[in-house]
Amino acid sequence: MKLNQEQLEAFERDGYVFLPECFSREETKVLTDELPGIFAQRRDEVWREKDGEAVRTAFAAHTYNEAFRRLGAHPRLVEPVQQLLDGQVYMHQFKINAKRAFDGDVWQWHQDYGTWARDDLMPEPRAMNIALFLDDVTEFNGPLMFIPRSHKAGVMEAGHDLESTSYPLWTLDKATVSRLAKDGGLVAPRGPAGSVLMFHCNLVHASPGNISPYDRTIVYLSLCEVNNHIRQFKRKEWIAHRDFTPIEALNDDCLMELAREKAA
Amino acid sequence: MKLNQEQLEAFERDGYVFLPECFSREETKVLTDELPGIFAQRRDEVWREKDGEAVRTAFAAHTYNEAFRRLGAHPRLVEPVQQLLDGQVYMHQFKINAKRAFDGDVWQWHQDYGTWARDDLMPEPRAMNIALFLDDVTEFNGPLMFIPRSHKAGVMEAGHDLESTSYPLWTLDKATVSRLAKDGGLVAPRGPAGSVLMFHCNLVHASPGNISPYDRTIVYLSLCEVNNHIRQFKRKEWIAHRDFTPIEALNDDCLMELAREKAA
Repeated sequence: MKLNQEQLEAFERDGYVFLPECFSREETKVLTDELPGIFAQRRDEVWREKDGEAVRTAFAAHTYNEAFRRLGAHPRLVEPVQQLLDGQVYMHQFKINAKRAFDGDVWQWHQDYGTWARDDLMPEPRAMNIALFLDDVTEFNGPLMFIPRSHKAGVMEAGHDLESTSYPLWTLDKATVSRLAKDGGLVAPRGPAGSVLMFHCNLVHASPGNISPYDRTIVYLSLCEVNNHIRQFKRKEWIAHRDFTPIEALNDDCLMELAREKAA
Repeated sequence: MKLNQEQLEAFERDGYVFLPECFSREETKVLTDELPGIFAQRRDEVWREKDGEAVRTAFAAHTYNEAFRRLGAHPRLVEPVQQLLDGQVYMHQFKINAKRAFDGDVWQWHQDYGTWARDDLMPEPRAMNIALFLDDVTEFNGPLMFIPRSHKAGVMEAGHDLESTSYPLWTLDKATVSRLAKDGGLVAPRGPAGSVLMFHCNLVHASPGNISPYDRTIVYLSLCEVNNHIRQFKRKEWIAHRDFTPIEALNDDCLMELAREKAA
């Protein structure tokens, strides 16, 4: 799967591309069927909200769950990123952000590369997120908010926020966010489960808490060009991976193959 | 100002009516010009978020600010409620909910009459809110979310939530909200400053936190039919008023009159 010229230009200009219904309902079901089992695990990789109960993020599920292992090498996710980064990629981070109904907490305003540069010494912004919606994302359940074009500003000053949520994050101050939003406005791409969202690693984004009765689960692959691998191993291996082997994309049918194997 | 047949039917069926751009930009400016002065006051009526800084709610501004005094007797707000409640009304509560940019906290799922009945011994659900947007309300800055038709369920069981926010509230449990939303779905009426939203006092509603760089100020008049006045005075007078004098609506031009007086 490759992005077309229009999508490439949108990414360059706005810092993101949204691909509605990129995966079928049947494919996303292969993944969502695994969520209760993953979220029930009391392991370090399954990070909880401040309440200690609701799952905030399940890291590295591609290392211990077959469906998510396949997703981590899915051609519809890996190939567009290879195309944009113009090279082979490895998995820098893999996470399922649960943003649970009623309990999902905010993700503050930040740039992903800000964290990757500061914490992991990733040399260049040659890495990016590609996300798959596992639930319908609506105006109600805490959609991602982007400031279009903010990726053009490069890495901005940030503070290490250890207080707001259960997860430490390098976050931008109010004045910076206000200034950027004055220029670029805000967008919150929404769409049914199976939609894909990819965005530049310097694009400023956040997402509000979820007080709706609807879960908002999104899987993120953070893919990094292999020569741009991280130089510092301060964070847990399951947060910032140290295996820089290029990902070999699986075949396009890999999720439905698994479904058929399980049914058989 | 009177609601037409279609609006009356919508209110009866869905539990709310939305009136976009009911007040002009010039009229809302008469009010927004007063906000910095009101929010800067360190008085009991000006309730802050948990951080102790950002204003959450300024109660009873109609008792100490001339522009908001006029709004509290504005015919475009008072008359539709007189019509719906079929009688004269007094001011049960008057509040400016600031929902400040970045810092505005949630309002949990609740019914207003649930609080008025439990805390104030208001006999019947013959009271309701009518709200005026003082900022543009968008998908980003924490709009009110309603569960349409939930007002038909009457007063439901609730718990007194003293923890989630800085303000105590009788809130519904997750199972109840999920069940009601399964039937009615969710709506979040949005529109420019000057829009008016009125809703049944048993309509289940909530609003998420505001992490956007845009304030979301809304003024609420809670008007009660005069014979239905509260019987218990447990809460502060400036939260649940004890003056049951019927409101005499001012003339429709009362806000612009004030603007002209000030300019003169």
